[in-house]
Amino acid sequence: MTSFSALSHLECPRCGATHDADQIIGLCPCGSPLLARYDLPSVTVTPASLADRAPNLWRYHELLPVRSPDNVVTLGEGMTPLLPLPRYGAELGVDRLLMKDEGLIPTGTFKARGAAVGVSRAYEVGVRKIAMPTNGNAGSAWAAYAARAGMEALIAMPIAAPEICRREVTVVGGRLQLIDGLIGDAAAYVREQPGYFDASTLKEPYRIEGKKTMGLEIAEQLNWELPDVIVYPTGGGVGIIGIWKGLLELRELGWISGPLPRLVAVQSTGCAPIVRAWEKGLPESEPWPDAKTIAFGITVPKALGDFLVLQAIAETDGCAVAVDDEDILAEQHKVARMEGSFICPEGAANFAAIRTLRESGWIRADDQVVALNTGAGLKYPETVPLPS
Amino acid sequence: MTSFSALSHLECPRCGATHDADQIIGLCPCGSPLLARYDLPSVTVTPASLADRAPNLWRYHELLPVRSPDNVVTLGEGMTPLLPLPRYGAELGVDRLLMKDEGLIPTGTFKARGAAVGVSRAYEVGVRKIAMPTNGNAGSAWAAYAARAGMEALIAMPIAAPEICRREVTVVGGRLQLIDGLIGDAAAYVREQPGYFDASTLKEPYRIEGKKTMGLEIAEQLNWELPDVIVYPTGGGVGIIGIWKGLLELRELGWISGPLPRLVAVQSTGCAPIVRAWEKGLPESEPWPDAKTIAFGITVPKALGDFLVLQAIAETDGCAVAVDDEDILAEQHKVARMEGSFICPEGAANFAAIRTLRESGWIRADDQVVALNTGAGLKYPETVPLPS
Ligand SMILES: Cc1ncc(COP(=O)(O)O)c(C=O)c1O
Ligand SMILES: Cc1ncc(COP(=O)(O)O)c(C=O)c1O
Ligand SMILES: [Zn+2]
Ligand SMILES: [Zn+2]
Repeated sequence: MTSFSALSHLECPRCGATHDADQIIGLCPCGSPLLARYDLPSVTVTPASLADRAPNLWRYHELLPVRSPDNVVTLGEGMTPLLPLPRYGAELGVDRLLMKDEGLIPTGTFKARGAAVGVSRAYEVGVRKIAMPTNGNAGSAWAAYAARAGMEALIAMPIAAPEICRREVTVVGGRLQLIDGLIGDAAAYVREQPGYFDASTLKEPYRIEGKKTMGLEIAEQLNWELPDVIVYPTGGGVGIIGIWKGLLELRELGWISGPLPRLVAVQSTGCAPIVRAWEKGLPESEPWPDAKTIAFGITVPKALGDFLVLQAIAETDGCAVAVDDEDILAEQHKVARMEGSFICPEGAANFAAIRTLRESGWIRADDQVVALNTGAGLKYPETVPLPS
Repeated sequence: MTSFSALSHLECPRCGATHDADQIIGLCPCGSPLLARYDLPSVTVTPASLADRAPNLWRYHELLPVRSPDNVVTLGEGMTPLLPLPRYGAELGVDRLLMKDEGLIPTGTFKARGAAVGVSRAYEVGVRKIAMPTNGNAGSAWAAYAARAGMEALIAMPIAAPEICRREVTVVGGRLQLIDGLIGDAAAYVREQPGYFDASTLKEPYRIEGKKTMGLEIAEQLNWELPDVIVYPTGGGVGIIGIWKGLLELRELGWISGPLPRLVAVQSTGCAPIVRAWEKGLPESEPWPDAKTIAFGITVPKALGDFLVLQAIAETDGCAVAVDDEDILAEQHKVARMEGSFICPEGAANFAAIRTLRESGWIRADDQVVALNTGAGLKYPETVPLPS
């Protein structure tokens, strides 16, 4: 009989050490993030039998780290639509263009996936108080799921983060600390708070497990045939690493086969450390000075998991691309007018990248391309002028 | 072989006249809204076979009016989660409390359901330009789906409507007309626009078909066992009428049996025409003077379908309740803190009503109660103070 979760242990992708998963743990002693590993041969569920499960990310519970269904903290997240964008695709010269709409999820961004799984698992191993630095959306999500779990949350957020995120943290009863600085400054603040579990991006091993479900869903929604290219707006990098990890697990399970989609990490020219490292062929990024972009969620000057992002794009024959804020806004408005969808600037950055990559020939006219709209435009009202 | 749609004709619930459905048509000549009728005996799909269909409202296509799948205009709407609220339910004294979260849908409110089906069907019968008055959310939704369909939309909206709705209409390329008045004044403006199909609430027969899918989904999500009570924030009334109509159709199909849930229409004490009519035992409401409430979506002083709302609550042994704005905001914050969900004031009005009805004994401790959160709190940032 398969268990609810096939979680076996935690593994360090840098030094190779393994760690017991059923303890409260952050980074590997070597300083690297840890990755959850599963006993995949023990998984007996089949793609066909998945069809009967509810349309949320917990349908993949064998591949998630929560051991008991009683510890699942959920607001109904997952199985977001994968929409064909025929009109806009034709305009971009990519007829088989799809957008996965992560605006249709609690708190309005894909961060809900990481928070649902991260909070559930933290609760399961005994954590009752979490603290985290955030560019806004992750804080909204973690505060919401912490409230749902009955846990305490302390959220440290740059003053420049979207206003709505402050309100979201407050309304669910989270403790909000505004920071006059960037996400790194917020992280420094969090490190000094005693009594809280530090749930910073990749400092805890499980949010990535939630985010990988985007990859699992794309595979399932395309009937276990993979697209040619997946495009992702990259800040801390967990979204793109998660998709990669999820697809590798599906391949090991034998549910998919053949080459993985080419993964594309998109950043803003106002903050493009991973793109620069990629162009220079470096294994890690260097901190980006004076980071600033309208796509606030991807304002991460130096990501802890940068080496994993670079590895994900290298091993899938992907690439990294930087786009201008002006082009981001132009594409955001174009997709809205042509397809009716009001997406976030981070999601729009993908389309600016797709336009560039199509023009250069890196994306071919017949490639099937999936772009992740990581959040709802509703969270970014100021990206549209207020008519009066 | 069943057709994609089992639509047979349109019927007038007031004078009983029937009309051909495959024409562009608004109200019955007698002035009443028209209702779509289906050839239900021709429907061969079974509840079990539904399980294989994608998790959106088009899974019920036999019971929807769009005849060809080619005319379906979709952004992935429907199959929103039905969440147990155990902690908040215990506090309210209703242990079996569920919330259907209509915030997780394109444009952030259940209005997307009416717009998806309404726009699809309008397109199918040949409409290419629509105009509509709106309290905001319906305008956002219809403008979005019109853009997705490649249709033109003219949206007339009170200046006092939520700001975000203006931006939503604009970003998708809708024509926005701000009105210094209430929704009735917007309706008067729309009536004078030549060349547009008037898609006002209940003046076109199909948005209700989209909204009825909330009822279909509740039944399916509860495994075709009905709850005891369904609570709905009522403005134009289409949501609650739609749920009622959907459940009646399921009963005729034999997919559900027994008495229907008691339907509760919730309004604000600042605009409660249906509650007043209900209390006086009248068959229709009278226009409410000086209507004003924080739950802007339910600021409808006189609804075209009021008589149908009153009939729905009478025939299901339901009732109508008015709640204060202050209580609406208090419940909105309570559900957020206790369950992690940031809901809209209209959705929160339900919980204020549930509290009253539980206290009076109208709702019993063991009743299973479903409350519809009709939209995302994200659309109402000003309901939460901005921390600084
Ligand atoms: C809307 C949005 N998109 C993308 C990202 C970047 O995600 P990741 O940190 O997983 O790379 C963020 C992070 O805050 C975000 O809020
Ligand atoms: C959030 C919200 N809830 C409820 C309603 C009322 O819906 P109905 O007109 O179907 O009664 C509206 C209508 O604008 C709304 O926007
Ligand atoms: Zn290590
Ligand atoms: Zn009639």
